[in-house]
Amino acid sequence: MNQNPAARLDGSVRVVGAGLLGASIGLGLKARGVDVILSDASRAGLNLAVDYGAGRLPHEGDDPALIVVAVPPDATASVVAAELAAYPTATVTDVASVKVAPLAELEALGDTLGTGDLARYVGSHPLAGRERGGAIAARADLFIGRPWVVCPRPEVPRERVGLVEHLILDLDATPVTLAAEEHDAAVALVSHAPQMVSTLMAKRLDGAPASALALAGQGLRDVTRIASSNPELWVQILSANAPAVVEILRAFRDDLDDVLRALGDVEASGARRALAQDLAAGNAGVAGLPGKHGQDRRYASVVVMVDDRPGELGRLFGELGEIGVNIEDLRLEHSPGAQIGLAEIAVLPEVKTRTIDDLSARGWRIAG
Amino acid sequence: MNQNPAARLDGSVRVVGAGLLGASIGLGLKARGVDVILSDASRAGLNLAVDYGAGRLPHEGDDPALIVVAVPPDATASVVAAELAAYPTATVTDVASVKVAPLAELEALGDTLGTGDLARYVGSHPLAGRERGGAIAARADLFIGRPWVVCPRPEVPRERVGLVEHLILDLDATPVTLAAEEHDAAVALVSHAPQMVSTLMAKRLDGAPASALALAGQGLRDVTRIASSNPELWVQILSANAPAVVEILRAFRDDLDDVLRALGDVEASGARRALAQDLAAGNAGVAGLPGKHGQDRRYASVVVMVDDRPGELGRLFGELGEIGVNIEDLRLEHSPGAQIGLAEIAVLPEVKTRTIDDLSARGWRIAG
Repeated sequence: MNQNPAARLDGSVRVVGAGLLGASIGLGLKARGVDVILSDASRAGLNLAVDYGAGRLPHEGDDPALIVVAVPPDATASVVAAELAAYPTATVTDVASVKVAPLAELEALGDTLGTGDLARYVGSHPLAGRERGGAIAARADLFIGRPWVVCPRPEVPRERVGLVEHLILDLDATPVTLAAEEHDAAVALVSHAPQMVSTLMAKRLDGAPASALALAGQGLRDVTRIASSNPELWVQILSANAPAVVEILRAFRDDLDDVLRALGDVEASGARRALAQDLAAGNAGVAGLPGKHGQDRRYASVVVMVDDRPGELGRLFGELGEIGVNIEDLRLEHSPGAQIGLAEIAVLPEVKTRTIDDLSARGWRIAG
Repeated sequence: MNQNPAARLDGSVRVVGAGLLGASIGLGLKARGVDVILSDASRAGLNLAVDYGAGRLPHEGDDPALIVVAVPPDATASVVAAELAAYPTATVTDVASVKVAPLAELEALGDTLGTGDLARYVGSHPLAGRERGGAIAARADLFIGRPWVVCPRPEVPRERVGLVEHLILDLDATPVTLAAEEHDAAVALVSHAPQMVSTLMAKRLDGAPASALALAGQGLRDVTRIASSNPELWVQILSANAPAVVEILRAFRDDLDDVLRALGDVEASGARRALAQDLAAGNAGVAGLPGKHGQDRRYASVVVMVDDRPGELGRLFGELGEIGVNIEDLRLEHSPGAQIGLAEIAVLPEVKTRTIDDLSARGWRIAG
């Protein structure tokens, strides 16, 4: 019988590395009643995560069935190897955001690993994170609804892969199986190249005149938001996935050279058409993104003007509750100095008209 | 005495071009009781904006003191010239997102304009917009709290510039005075170059495997959001401001070449340091952006877990009102399939602890 009635995982889970991901995994598993053993090279970091409720300190005789290595990419292979050696029957996974390089490193360590040890390793990668790092930013719900890639190699027994899938499902994430090479090419496209593009755009702002920065709007803020990510971590990620990232960025650079040529002489034949084609291809690229945040047409939007004082949003949402309208998504715009904010509420399309009518009847000003 | 007691502007305002900006200006001025005369090359577009409440059709004998030209950048100079000729005493402004090119075009038209006509023209540009265009997306509050650049030339009498400032203040925007060249360099940096960077990143996604796109997170969505902007409009904007945009994008391209070199051989001496320096410069660039979005440290964040059913957000915000906490900003995260959403609330730092304590005491689950 499973020791953890609310979990798929049985027994204890050891989490090595008590940063954002490790501590979030610990919080999520503990919420399901799983015994979580935390370990971290930093005693202070470990104690913080334990205080935070992400797990307990190791005991003599701990016998985890599953070990999750959640350390920076550069350290992943050596820590995985050490855990495989220290716990000779456990399944070991990692959460590094690159998958080919750690595996190659582990294979190169072949001699120092025990025979068959690599058949207990299943690489994985949760597509979840925050700009802020550390246990203090950890959240039990960090992985809810997010994809979590598993890269099982043919020699790994099915039940060990199943253990990692149980971990993922217990954290309410969605397991996605990919080969390590497929994974690395995919994250180069959707994460690593965009990081560098955002970084280099934000670098242009460094030292720019305040009069120019004062004109910045939401578009610039969105493009550059992830440029505030941790440099040390990102040097490791980009370095470990360099060939795949270079492939995307080189194609980007070639397109950029074409744009520079077109902008260098906009009256030349074909120059404007080339720009229009790039802009249209960008439209198509965004339209192809799945999910509710991209170009989602599942919801309709209602924009309500809200006075900037305590309780006004409460009154709005209370009245939405009274008229039985669920808020699918929400964005509050609030201009510096303005006495009025805008609440942009996403609702199901079939209730949009009723929402506007009912709110208007109750005296709310609808802005769009 | 002013005909419009709720406005700074006296008399009628004529708005030429009934798209997003023109119709939003009309809605905003009408909300202050100003008589707004709308004109548009498209009869259907004009009727739509009139039906939408953005203004009235022109009458024989209209005598507007101020005319706002809100047509695409390519058409701006010729429409401004036509309005200067048709209304020989009116002040004419425009809202095109480039300022040097329309002025140069107008100056080239010198002969066909009447003597001194250009002394009645004051270029301007509101930093406001939406991805959606057209009168149907117009909002009376589009300009609230946004910067609105005015580019007065020395020969324009002060009272004509004052009229344009009254327009801006009546729409609750903030007038910012810049020379046309300063304006164009600034928007190249904060708007036009980021548009092209976002577009070219989004172009990489066009035709990418669905298995890769399924891994997309909020970071990619943010970087590429503005890539869904209108291609036709942006060809005009980029073409009209090409030299300033090229200057930014060329520097970006040179940085990108350095990144490609570093990623081409990450073990080379200095390669990782070069990447780290770029990432740090990106951090600095984002940190330098003013305002509450970006890396704002004026507010503290409290994350509350909210059940996904009608009324729950209302209850939360109602209770925040009861405990006297104002919500400075808000973001709702809601994973597909999850029964729980996360409300990330920005509050003044001094009330963060009390907010967490009071909400916890009332049974709310605080996630961070």
